[in-house]
Amino acid sequence: MVSRRSFFTTAGLGLAAAGCSTFSANAAGTCTASCCPPAVTEYPYGNPADTFRLGIAGFTFVKFKLDKALEMMKKVDVHYLCIKDFHLPLTSDAAQIAAFHEQCKAADVKGYACGPIYMGSEEAARNAFEYAKRCGVKTLVAVPFEMKNVPGKDKPQRVSSRKLLEYVDKLVKEYDIRYAIHNHGPDIPYLFPHAASAMEMIADLDKRIGLCLDIGHELRFDKNPVDSFIEYHDRVYDMHLKNVTANNKSGRGTPLPRGKIDLLALVKALRKYRYSGMCSLEYETNMNNPIVDIAECVGYFRGLMDATR
Amino acid sequence: MVSRRSFFTTAGLGLAAAGCSTFSANAAGTCTASCCPPAVTEYPYGNPADTFRLGIAGFTFVKFKLDKALEMMKKVDVHYLCIKDFHLPLTSDAAQIAAFHEQCKAADVKGYACGPIYMGSEEAARNAFEYAKRCGVKTLVAVPFEMKNVPGKDKPQRVSSRKLLEYVDKLVKEYDIRYAIHNHGPDIPYLFPHAASAMEMIADLDKRIGLCLDIGHELRFDKNPVDSFIEYHDRVYDMHLKNVTANNKSGRGTPLPRGKIDLLALVKALRKYRYSGMCSLEYETNMNNPIVDIAECVGYFRGLMDATR
Repeated sequence: MVSRRSFFTTAGLGLAAAGCSTFSANAAGTCTASCCPPAVTEYPYGNPADTFRLGIAGFTFVKFKLDKALEMMKKVDVHYLCIKDFHLPLTSDAAQIAAFHEQCKAADVKGYACGPIYMGSEEAARNAFEYAKRCGVKTLVAVPFEMKNVPGKDKPQRVSSRKLLEYVDKLVKEYDIRYAIHNHGPDIPYLFPHAASAMEMIADLDKRIGLCLDIGHELRFDKNPVDSFIEYHDRVYDMHLKNVTANNKSGRGTPLPRGKIDLLALVKALRKYRYSGMCSLEYETNMNNPIVDIAECVGYFRGLMDATR
Repeated sequence: MVSRRSFFTTAGLGLAAAGCSTFSANAAGTCTASCCPPAVTEYPYGNPADTFRLGIAGFTFVKFKLDKALEMMKKVDVHYLCIKDFHLPLTSDAAQIAAFHEQCKAADVKGYACGPIYMGSEEAARNAFEYAKRCGVKTLVAVPFEMKNVPGKDKPQRVSSRKLLEYVDKLVKEYDIRYAIHNHGPDIPYLFPHAASAMEMIADLDKRIGLCLDIGHELRFDKNPVDSFIEYHDRVYDMHLKNVTANNKSGRGTPLPRGKIDLLALVKALRKYRYSGMCSLEYETNMNNPIVDIAECVGYFRGLMDATR
């Protein structure tokens, strides 16, 4: 099957998005419908020759207020941030959101998406879409769940929810916002443990529902994240970039050059399939003082990008 | 002309060093004479598939004692240090040198060379060789000078010294230690400003006299350091890795991904010519707190190395 993305042979110049049911071309002939992957024009900072960008997932900065997070991003020359609610609460009004974006802009940073946001009800899902709409982003990274009993646990657990996804199917149409489900690896095996478990549940739904592929959790479930990206590339709308020490539950976060994931193979696949989303570093080690590790990771990924352009 | 190094087609396995006048093979058939480039077996840490290694030039840590320097190296997983005299004085005796190596070894670091050492007399040159010999290194990074009047200066200046190099020619034979002249760029135009200025002065001397190619200073003199490496590759015994913001005197140090030097082209050339020395990061910005910048540089260079292997 020729996917929409592999059909492109240049950076979208003058080429239509084949097979896109809601094709809507801009002046350059690139499809701008939200059911298509993000166009690189959504992401002004960076090398125009790249279809994808390096960003940072907000969770990396869970121990820091926004000003410190932005300082760190400036230090390592990264310009895209996935907005987490501890930096911009879900209840934020228009003025608070405008102030947030203003603060980011002063540091040459763009808040390009929101999430991950956990949502356990239709009301919570709609609230998240309303929030993403107010934030002006086109991608919502999400974990849709319902509470269920599972073997071996005394209390109900958060479990992947097809029922809620059927409601999300309506919301993506209503809001025209991409919905990227985050996989969680072996730690929460009943809540989208790997990409395939999400794709099985959304294959027949609106194509605006796709994945935020967490490559670390994918490997920790002993799935090769490069294969997962290739298999589902036309539904991958965001990515959590990391490396881990082992392909099982014992795998821990480590600077990008030192883990088990073949990141060169990943970058080659991103180029081959013209991935046009974000690769957002989600660094979860040394979280009280992560800047040195972040710098090494950012440098490494830039090296891979520069060497494969 | 087929150089010694371009004659190799694999990592030296079973191949003689063609044209080496003092060829001395080890069990693997690799020339171990000091007039040949360092064999990768001198450098045990790192990927066996690489002929060259990433190290750090001691001057990067001019503001830090050895223990802090080693901590930083451990943090970024780099294992080769070019020894500067502020960490190990030239007057050090055998016991002090042994203690230095012991301290390095505990941090999985090898002091692989000494320098840069400035030397303005035959006595200073011999002292430096004695020091290198006591340190057990095979490469001495050096700046041989004599004091001379130059136009526009009131006092005599350090100037490149052919006379001293003729004495060094005897010393490399006597000690069998490589002598790598460090180029200084436009700041000191009479003291080996670029690679060619050194090569003109040493072309007819013992091949153990060669270069420590400082790629930043080379670009600041508006010389393409990749071309310089290619032209003199069989006399490059060490390298100061850096990036700079401009190809003139105004060029300042910057993290590797963000300067004017095409480091991907450099790494490709290092691989093509089977460079078997060290690429030692000499980072001269934020010297009071360089670890974040060092980490970004190290990550970047590793990315380039991994993507070109």
